Amino acid sequence: MTDRNLYNPRTVIDHADFKKLSGKPEHTDANIALCYSPEKKVYMVQKPRFDPAPGQVECHVKATGFCGSDVHFAQHGAIGPMVVDDICGCGHESAGEVTRVGEGVTDFQPGDRVAIEAGVPCGVCDYCKRGRYNACPDVVFFSTPPHHGTMTRYHLHPAAWLHKLPESMSFEEGALCEPLAVAMAGMQRSGMRLGDCVVVCGAGPIGLVTLLAARAAGAIPLITDLSSSRLDFAKKLVPSVKTVLIEKGQSPKEVAEKIQKVASMPVTLAMECTGVESSIHAAIFSMAFGGKVFIIGVGKDIQTIPFMHLSANEIDLQWQFRYANQYPRAIRCVANGMIDVKPLVTHRFCLEDAMDGFETAANPASGAIKVQIVD
Amino acid sequence: MTDRNLYNPRTVIDHADFKKLSGKPEHTDANIALCYSPEKKVYMVQKPRFDPAPGQVECHVKATGFCGSDVHFAQHGAIGPMVVDDICGCGHESAGEVTRVGEGVTDFQPGDRVAIEAGVPCGVCDYCKRGRYNACPDVVFFSTPPHHGTMTRYHLHPAAWLHKLPESMSFEEGALCEPLAVAMAGMQRSGMRLGDCVVVCGAGPIGLVTLLAARAAGAIPLITDLSSSRLDFAKKLVPSVKTVLIEKGQSPKEVAEKIQKVASMPVTLAMECTGVESSIHAAIFSMAFGGKVFIIGVGKDIQTIPFMHLSANEIDLQWQFRYANQYPRAIRCVANGMIDVKPLVTHRFCLEDAMDGFETAANPASGAIKVQIVD
Amino acid sequence: MTDRNLYNPRTVIDHADFKKLSGKPEHTDANIALCYSPEKKVYMVQKPRFDPAPGQVECHVKATGFCGSDVHFAQHGAIGPMVVDDICGCGHESAGEVTRVGEGVTDFQPGDRVAIEAGVPCGVCDYCKRGRYNACPDVVFFSTPPHHGTMTRYHLHPAAWLHKLPESMSFEEGALCEPLAVAMAGMQRSGMRLGDCVVVCGAGPIGLVTLLAARAAGAIPLITDLSSSRLDFAKKLVPSVKTVLIEKGQSPKEVAEKIQKVASMPVTLAMECTGVESSIHAAIFSMAFGGKVFIIGVGKDIQTIPFMHLSANEIDLQWQFRYANQYPRAIRCVANGMIDVKPLVTHRFCLEDAMDGFETAANPASGAIKVQIVD
Amino acid sequence: MTDRNLYNPRTVIDHADFKKLSGKPEHTDANIALCYSPEKKVYMVQKPRFDPAPGQVECHVKATGFCGSDVHFAQHGAIGPMVVDDICGCGHESAGEVTRVGEGVTDFQPGDRVAIEAGVPCGVCDYCKRGRYNACPDVVFFSTPPHHGTMTRYHLHPAAWLHKLPESMSFEEGALCEPLAVAMAGMQRSGMRLGDCVVVCGAGPIGLVTLLAARAAGAIPLITDLSSSRLDFAKKLVPSVKTVLIEKGQSPKEVAEKIQKVASMPVTLAMECTGVESSIHAAIFSMAFGGKVFIIGVGKDIQTIPFMHLSANEIDLQWQFRYANQYPRAIRCVANGMIDVKPLVTHRFCLEDAMDGFETAANPASGAIKVQIVD
Repeated sequence: MTDRNLYNPRTVIDHADFKKLSGKPEHTDANIALCYSPEKKVYMVQKPRFDPAPGQVECHVKATGFCGSDVHFAQHGAIGPMVVDDICGCGHESAGEVTRVGEGVTDFQPGDRVAIEAGVPCGVCDYCKRGRYNACPDVVFFSTPPHHGTMTRYHLHPAAWLHKLPESMSFEEGALCEPLAVAMAGMQRSGMRLGDCVVVCGAGPIGLVTLLAARAAGAIPLITDLSSSRLDFAKKLVPSVKTVLIEKGQSPKEVAEKIQKVASMPVTLAMECTGVESSIHAAIFSMAFGGKVFIIGVGKDIQTIPFMHLSANEIDLQWQFRYANQYPRAIRCVANGMIDVKPLVTHRFCLEDAMDGFETAANPASGAIKVQIVD
Repeated sequence: MTDRNLYNPRTVIDHADFKKLSGKPEHTDANIALCYSPEKKVYMVQKPRFDPAPGQVECHVKATGFCGSDVHFAQHGAIGPMVVDDICGCGHESAGEVTRVGEGVTDFQPGDRVAIEAGVPCGVCDYCKRGRYNACPDVVFFSTPPHHGTMTRYHLHPAAWLHKLPESMSFEEGALCEPLAVAMAGMQRSGMRLGDCVVVCGAGPIGLVTLLAARAAGAIPLITDLSSSRLDFAKKLVPSVKTVLIEKGQSPKEVAEKIQKVASMPVTLAMECTGVESSIHAAIFSMAFGGKVFIIGVGKDIQTIPFMHLSANEIDLQWQFRYANQYPRAIRCVANGMIDVKPLVTHRFCLEDAMDGFETAANPASGAIKVQIVD
Repeated sequence: MTDRNLYNPRTVIDHADFKKLSGKPEHTDANIALCYSPEKKVYMVQKPRFDPAPGQVECHVKATGFCGSDVHFAQHGAIGPMVVDDICGCGHESAGEVTRVGEGVTDFQPGDRVAIEAGVPCGVCDYCKRGRYNACPDVVFFSTPPHHGTMTRYHLHPAAWLHKLPESMSFEEGALCEPLAVAMAGMQRSGMRLGDCVVVCGAGPIGLVTLLAARAAGAIPLITDLSSSRLDFAKKLVPSVKTVLIEKGQSPKEVAEKIQKVASMPVTLAMECTGVESSIHAAIFSMAFGGKVFIIGVGKDIQTIPFMHLSANEIDLQWQFRYANQYPRAIRCVANGMIDVKPLVTHRFCLEDAMDGFETAANPASGAIKVQIVD
Repeated sequence: MTDRNLYNPRTVIDHADFKKLSGKPEHTDANIALCYSPEKKVYMVQKPRFDPAPGQVECHVKATGFCGSDVHFAQHGAIGPMVVDDICGCGHESAGEVTRVGEGVTDFQPGDRVAIEAGVPCGVCDYCKRGRYNACPDVVFFSTPPHHGTMTRYHLHPAAWLHKLPESMSFEEGALCEPLAVAMAGMQRSGMRLGDCVVVCGAGPIGLVTLLAARAAGAIPLITDLSSSRLDFAKKLVPSVKTVLIEKGQSPKEVAEKIQKVASMPVTLAMECTGVESSIHAAIFSMAFGGKVFIIGVGKDIQTIPFMHLSANEIDLQWQFRYANQYPRAIRCVANGMIDVKPLVTHRFCLEDAMDGFETAANPASGAIKVQIVD
């Protein structure tokens, strides 16, 4: 039995040892990482390579996707109460290969291929005991300051929070299990059922992965976006999906009417992946009595809602914060061919070129859906 | 088998026959009723007394409570999209005695004591078939224009929507099953469980009946209000309830902190019975991760919510619109001594004095919780 | 608004008018029907053709499938408490075309294509009000004695229990919505979720349609049967399904071990479609802690269960009786290409040849999955 | 943050050090314990008193109840697959006072009063992560061989599995939280709602504590037993409970009819606390369509069920194995006066007299409900 509590993630974070590199590194086995700073600079650093502590596993990270939060931290220096007050490393969507195992680790051995669940909860608080560990107040979430991320070459991780990948799954797919876990957590908590008409708001990375999960779960899906090229991408991903292009200047009620018309059946669930007030209003107005708007997207701190419409129609609002217990399920779905996440990776860079990857991920005009760093 | 569909409520509403009475009527068996008009006048009218149609039952209404909506319709001429464009009768919280039965009615006979479920749905739409008949678009809800209410002497009702009262229950208790049905519908949909700490926001009639239902369902309750006398009333009703007096000028976060302090355990459910934005915010901020704010109160059309706080803490928002399938359960709870609603009736008037009753119900300074008309 | 209660199904059942035909009828528009008798004889009869009563619709039945219960009633004269004590007509899996509508029917007109929901509940009992109308004690279920079935040319049906078929769906598919409704009701009540490993026990018609529904809902499915040809059929239907051939003489624990081995992941739900004790035991032993065996199949009145194994592993047992509120959902799933039921129809006969159809459906050696009568 | 994984329960179990005492010990602070052996002998032993390891807390156990399983292990040498193959200590229903804390324990200090959750799961398996830790295959459950129980003077326990008791709760009440946790786990998973009519089968310790929990959760309860004195005890505990005395020779259907008659409303949930086949059948036959028989009692390995009755009435069967996440809730309920468990303790013995306590607990004629050892 491995022991995740022997792991102390703080041993791997030694800021003083970081060497800021002035240029692109040679391809070596140096433990380089993409980091950002309180000054909102992004650069590569070289980190020490520690031995795994008891219960820990060292992974050679083989694929890591950029998340919107990586870009947001780097560019804005904070997300809500989480502030970048020291240099911090990017990345929490990763898969890799086991290179070394610490004392007491019996479930893994070098060569094993794994997805890395980046949030490591305490395991003993009331939330952890109840299986809702995304609420753990003592969680170590890699890439959320002050915890460095997994966009590095060698990452130490508690064995209990690694998930074996079957041979049929690539590292890229393993890394994509992270955004898929978000979508699947939302789908599961939404209570969606076979044959429900589900509108996915927003055809960005989270919207698209939610579309895949909804389709796999038997939804009759519809997706909205302001960009017709994103809707085209969605259509290629899920040919049966209905699409609604939102036009500038349309009111939420107008959008809702269009959604209802295109759906041509009662819409009972929206998976809202934009966090934008007008989109949420449109989702609300498109619901049938008893519907639910499930909000995965993040947005403005304070927003308005059409209160009496929600009341008179018993429309639930629900939100998702990270995920719990989704990796095994996500891996099963991908490995068994129920969800094909591969098309989501539109751009790939090697670790040495991670800064170029960041530029692409941060550039809305790049047309990128998911940018991954592979090594 | 009675047949509710043979009932046509429109046959009992013959505005032309209404006689506006200039003074207080003699006590007779005249079918008088309390009505309001588009001109926002309130007066007694005399209605014809029809024979029950097939499937219908005539009830001598013995007790009817005033609801806030009666007062609102009379004073403001509308609630949301429901507009008073003709004379309309008050009352939907009623119990009475069966006086005559129409053809085909076999479940009831004169002398039976019944609670009257005032909302009569169509029975064949998709919502009705699914048991969610409060969503029925063709519902006839007595006292919602244009359907006259039950604050009258003789009311014709489809047999299928009457509920027998056991001997142990008074007509007053039978009438109180209506607001209790609202609270129980909310409690049921909220998913509350034995031992949950539940904050009830607002100690008005709905707040108090919700408090009773929450306590009966095993909640550890806490109630808030701006009025200390209302909190005193709550304390007399449920001695174990914790109370939080909200002071003018306190911010929602300050109120939330006070709630958490008084609760001294994680608060996981709020039953919001005010519909007031600041109270809803306070409820939200008082929740533990994964909590739910269940909103029964009605309020402003558009309201703000602390969006990111809801998101980061997976706090659900849910609303209640009327109720479905609650009368039998409410009657069971009252008849078996699990919920004592009797103390809620603070003022009683005879039917001839219904206008005085209206004045009392409409006057915030009256200190009334529930005003009932008894006959 | 149509009124289902104006419909009196007894008006269409006039046994005295039945003319037993000695031979195969000419192809006319005679209202012929396949019936069975208390003497366990099966024959064609000619029925009168009545005018639709108010609220009723006359359908020209275009496709009707044989159900195991049709064969069972005909051959054994009873299913549990339901006894064949007079001549009775087969068939409750039907779709057809509207030919005439009764007074007050506004939702349908001649030429409309419809699926016929064969169970017509009372609409006003507590179960109907709660949306669980399969429990209605006064249900008229066509083809359950004494109510004649729908395997006839012209059937009168209350408008409220017809479901429009979109152009994209054939009558055969419409008729298959009935067994699909059974499977979908079970799936829905089972609480299955995307990525669950689900074992379907039995590859007969209900097992196969359950397999289709499970797959559409995101299950990772496995199916068992004693017949390798049935498993081959399942494999053609759902290429990704895993199969376990049960061999004579294998104990339930041996079968369970094989299921677990083939699944190669925790099995958390079984959809049991055989009703056979040994199969149910195998399903139980194959479950992980917290699993559920959901039983759709019918079987012996009294059966054994491995009680302490169920207790020590918190394995739920749940059963399905007919269905409620599934037709609209089933039609949506078929019409949107999520479930392809067409391959299930292996044999077709015209109405005049219905007795040949019966022979085929009743003959286990026929290899038939679903036999339909088309007209 | 305490670390439950530093705890190795095996360090406290050193069989070689056990000294079998021939007589009753002097009252000292010797760490004595009540044990049983593979030879089915029961005796007091003296155990060493170890220092708490890091993460551990030493408790002076102040109250421990006998469970039926203690008696069963001692008299029969096994429960299912759990076999007594070495000397083993009784007791898992305990509360005590903190005497010493190990390294790293910051949540507790000497003098704290605590309930001891006797089952310590691994914390990192899939079941633990999902909050269903009663399924943990590596659980250390004290008093289940080979893990010694808590009916001793000094017990070492991981800090994470102790629960603070408020001043208002006695140690006896704290110890009773264990059987209450079983009942509350069952109530919670049963889905019982306010106003449900619930039949509790069996008025033994678990039946009575289930009755208390059901009543607190808003059930309209009815209890059955073969013993009128047990029903009298139930009536004293919950005066509003309805009772059904089961007479020898009554068939399950006869008992069910009596239950239905006494209930005089639809019975929708049974909490079966006997595990006896005939009682389970009676519970099943007493259910309304859609009801549930929730089985807490343990019984024969193989039992029969009325399969087709379950099927035709969609009656669910569900089982409870131990509990998860119930202690905090149980403590809240007792501390807030919602559940009064005190009357359940009918007999008390000091630790030195634990063998007398065992005799009383093991003697059906003693009339004991709950026997506790207090120190």
